Amino acid sequence: MKKIERQSSGKKFKEKLFGVIYESDTLGGKFFNIALITCVVISVLIVSFDSIERINIRYGKILLFAEWTITILFTIEYALRIVCIKKPLKYIFSFMGLVDLLSILPLYLSFFFTGTKYLVVIRTFRILRVFRILKMWNFIEASHHLTRALYISSIKIGVFLLFILVLVIIIGSLMYLIEGGKYGFDNIPQSIYWAIVTLTTVGYGDIAPKTPVGRSFASIIMLLGYGILAVPTGIVTAELVKLAKAPHVKSIHSCPSCGKEGHDTDAHFCKFCGGKLGISPAHE
Amino acid sequence: MKKIERQSSGKKFKEKLFGVIYESDTLGGKFFNIALITCVVISVLIVSFDSIERINIRYGKILLFAEWTITILFTIEYALRIVCIKKPLKYIFSFMGLVDLLSILPLYLSFFFTGTKYLVVIRTFRILRVFRILKMWNFIEASHHLTRALYISSIKIGVFLLFILVLVIIIGSLMYLIEGGKYGFDNIPQSIYWAIVTLTTVGYGDIAPKTPVGRSFASIIMLLGYGILAVPTGIVTAELVKLAKAPHVKSIHSCPSCGKEGHDTDAHFCKFCGGKLGISPAHE
Amino acid sequence: MKKIERQSSGKKFKEKLFGVIYESDTLGGKFFNIALITCVVISVLIVSFDSIERINIRYGKILLFAEWTITILFTIEYALRIVCIKKPLKYIFSFMGLVDLLSILPLYLSFFFTGTKYLVVIRTFRILRVFRILKMWNFIEASHHLTRALYISSIKIGVFLLFILVLVIIIGSLMYLIEGGKYGFDNIPQSIYWAIVTLTTVGYGDIAPKTPVGRSFASIIMLLGYGILAVPTGIVTAELVKLAKAPHVKSIHSCPSCGKEGHDTDAHFCKFCGGKLGISPAHE
Amino acid sequence: MKKIERQSSGKKFKEKLFGVIYESDTLGGKFFNIALITCVVISVLIVSFDSIERINIRYGKILLFAEWTITILFTIEYALRIVCIKKPLKYIFSFMGLVDLLSILPLYLSFFFTGTKYLVVIRTFRILRVFRILKMWNFIEASHHLTRALYISSIKIGVFLLFILVLVIIIGSLMYLIEGGKYGFDNIPQSIYWAIVTLTTVGYGDIAPKTPVGRSFASIIMLLGYGILAVPTGIVTAELVKLAKAPHVKSIHSCPSCGKEGHDTDAHFCKFCGGKLGISPAHE
Repeated sequence: MKKIERQSSGKKFKEKLFGVIYESDTLGGKFFNIALITCVVISVLIVSFDSIERINIRYGKILLFAEWTITILFTIEYALRIVCIKKPLKYIFSFMGLVDLLSILPLYLSFFFTGTKYLVVIRTFRILRVFRILKMWNFIEASHHLTRALYISSIKIGVFLLFILVLVIIIGSLMYLIEGGKYGFDNIPQSIYWAIVTLTTVGYGDIAPKTPVGRSFASIIMLLGYGILAVPTGIVTAELVKLAKAPHVKSIHSCPSCGKEGHDTDAHFCKFCGGKLGISPAHE
Repeated sequence: MKKIERQSSGKKFKEKLFGVIYESDTLGGKFFNIALITCVVISVLIVSFDSIERINIRYGKILLFAEWTITILFTIEYALRIVCIKKPLKYIFSFMGLVDLLSILPLYLSFFFTGTKYLVVIRTFRILRVFRILKMWNFIEASHHLTRALYISSIKIGVFLLFILVLVIIIGSLMYLIEGGKYGFDNIPQSIYWAIVTLTTVGYGDIAPKTPVGRSFASIIMLLGYGILAVPTGIVTAELVKLAKAPHVKSIHSCPSCGKEGHDTDAHFCKFCGGKLGISPAHE
Repeated sequence: MKKIERQSSGKKFKEKLFGVIYESDTLGGKFFNIALITCVVISVLIVSFDSIERINIRYGKILLFAEWTITILFTIEYALRIVCIKKPLKYIFSFMGLVDLLSILPLYLSFFFTGTKYLVVIRTFRILRVFRILKMWNFIEASHHLTRALYISSIKIGVFLLFILVLVIIIGSLMYLIEGGKYGFDNIPQSIYWAIVTLTTVGYGDIAPKTPVGRSFASIIMLLGYGILAVPTGIVTAELVKLAKAPHVKSIHSCPSCGKEGHDTDAHFCKFCGGKLGISPAHE
Repeated sequence: MKKIERQSSGKKFKEKLFGVIYESDTLGGKFFNIALITCVVISVLIVSFDSIERINIRYGKILLFAEWTITILFTIEYALRIVCIKKPLKYIFSFMGLVDLLSILPLYLSFFFTGTKYLVVIRTFRILRVFRILKMWNFIEASHHLTRALYISSIKIGVFLLFILVLVIIIGSLMYLIEGGKYGFDNIPQSIYWAIVTLTTVGYGDIAPKTPVGRSFASIIMLLGYGILAVPTGIVTAELVKLAKAPHVKSIHSCPSCGKEGHDTDAHFCKFCGGKLGISPAHE
């Protein structure tokens, strides 16, 4: 009898925990999510400031302590996530589950591998924690359309990027020959790097043509890039326009004869059974 | 009797003043607004030229005098605005009211706080006066669609910018590790700065990757940025296209049998009662 | 009798000349236009190469001679244009007429004003001759939609640019205060210049923030610019999409009863007189 | 008898070969294409790494050997392509045929022309081999819409680029006069180069205005460029939107009285004869 109660109370606790950790529409869940995101932001700030030499020398120890505190909190959270979910394996191997694991692993690994330099490398992955914020996207209905449009566009943009890659290799090689291995165009890979910097209109200026022929060729490339830049924008926009098109408005009233729905708002006879449709006050 | 007259004449004066200051479709209002904008432009020019050392040394006193003249004019205007409006508090705490106050405050504050250096800081806010010009936007019908589309898009673009922020932090940290704290990638905040400069295709070139691995990574980021840049453009465009869409044209004639409207312009038989539709002279 | 003949032959010559100079669908006109554009291109090349010091020293005289030859040819052409048109004044004060005059004037003016330095200034206007090529735009139907869309968009983009101007002044002033008049942000005009360079994503890098606060602020500006860049593109695209929308297809057949046109392709009864419409083979 | 068999087996071999080389939906064809693309990528990498001086000194010979191996393989492939196709001449003079030839020619030509420097020039063309990958585009349906939209847009963008060219020449010349042949604006061609770099928002920064007038003028150009950049994007997007538009949905059912089709899905009475429309099971 007592056992069952314990089990039942354990079950209730799990359910409550699930409501707090996984769902964000409960009061506890809201607090939990805000606390989580705050921790992520603080952690990112700690890693960032720790990389500044001047700060690292003075406050290195405090930052490390804060880092450990957050990591332990995240570890507890990770354990609770596994405990209160029904299918733990599915969570562990989901994208967010792996991100959660990678958020806590690096600091523990720094025990066994003392190479401080490499430690820093692993530390960076923790920034992926920020992606947890993305869970909040569910609230924002706006992102739904966007992600669908981007998903549909991704194939087309992929094909387009493949084409750009080919273009960039040829442009880079030609520029290498034109500038004759000078003025930063020391080799083909570096010239390809220049071509990408130019075609994407980033234009650092660390590598730039100096010869008249090189500059003429670069000018053509830039004007070409003008038109090329239009393509990905066009793809995404066309997809968004298609999705944004308001669906044909249908009446919310069902036929009084056959009960079917989906009539036009201006229909008077049911298009399924031919029976007369009732007129709701909303229509008057 | 006289009191009422005075009151009434005072009321009339207030009304006239209101027409000049707040409305821009009266003759006085038009002159007032043009004078106002001229003053704002002159004031902005004075502040700008005053910041040029060479000019400041030679003409500093004249510019200060001109600055004071405009500030006093704006103070009088501010007082009149409060006097002639019915709900002064609503104006004072409105966006434009606060801008108006901030336009005159800095120079007066420079009396009490003699730190000339800080004075300059406050002075800049006066440039916000330029926003008064925005009141003229009301004239231009064109901006209406635009502002609505931007308002609707702002949420989506906000979500998108959040995503970019996450992306930029991860890219910056990875670049910090790749370039090993050299060539301007001294710490993570600076590397994030580089990531923003690159992804937005600004590309100053003050920080740029030097190692082959760093350049390869930067190339991928730039090509990615190509596709990413398309998203905000797509969002705004899709919204503008949706708003610009002309409503579906329907016949304005009602059925002579049942009197219902909403027929296609090419319909001959009423789709509600099956009766023959009449033909109006407008079709000829 | 002879006089009339002479008059008539003069009139015929004028008409022929008009066909050659102003119209481009005749054989003579085509040749004339191609020759004209060739001369413009050569002239532009001459001016360009003449500005290169090394070439100017060696070939300066030859280039000057060539320049004079083309200018005289253009002067004759200009005279003929006035002679053979019916309303010469309308041509002279039209945009293309003024461009034609400005194409020949500078070199003649160089006689009276010996200042060689200023001569060069006037010389540049001759490049406007290139605009004559634009006359060929008439051939290309494609540009019609484009120019209309740009014309409609120009007001909206004008409003938008006004807003950008305000934004850029405020950003520039704030940056002047943040960077404290150092690192190229010597005064407000220069800081505004930086703001424009940044917001348009040009990013020369001659002026760039160095302080952490300045870089943070610049980062926000750049991310903002991301969204802002979307607006002009959105405006033009929405206009083009609206114009590009194919007009509702109508039948090319007129009603056999009343002769009216403009019926839908699927209509069987004339929507104007109610008469039965004939069916053309194209419909079967 | 034997001869016919031989002929027939030769024919069969040819057909099999054709299936492997030209078609990519057979198992052999898939393997062949993947091997081909792998070779192209390796070859591009070899040429790229060979251009890096440090690598060239150490591994130059190995890379040359690998280069020759791939070239010989490509030569055999080229021969087989000609053998197994029915109309060899059509293939040889097609775009892909010429690319295939240019992929193998340079290395053989390096025998007769010993100028190693020029050899490198020809070598670059082999990178065009990468275009073979483009044959894989056929698989991806996504590119179809894209290429059609780009083809339609190409004329409009061509007109637009012509206009940009004119603009850029005038801007460049004006800037040459403003900056007075200093700060990198040494001559008109170089100033035009600057104008292109600026208007396309690349902005290297190797040439940048230094005088206040020059910077003011450049600011105007950049803000102009803001609007101009919108045009090619608008053109491509409008075309893509037009193509992406779903055709207007009509009922697939014909009128039971007159048998005509093309009714709206919500129509109850035939718009051609006025007869009542039947209801199909598809509507339930």
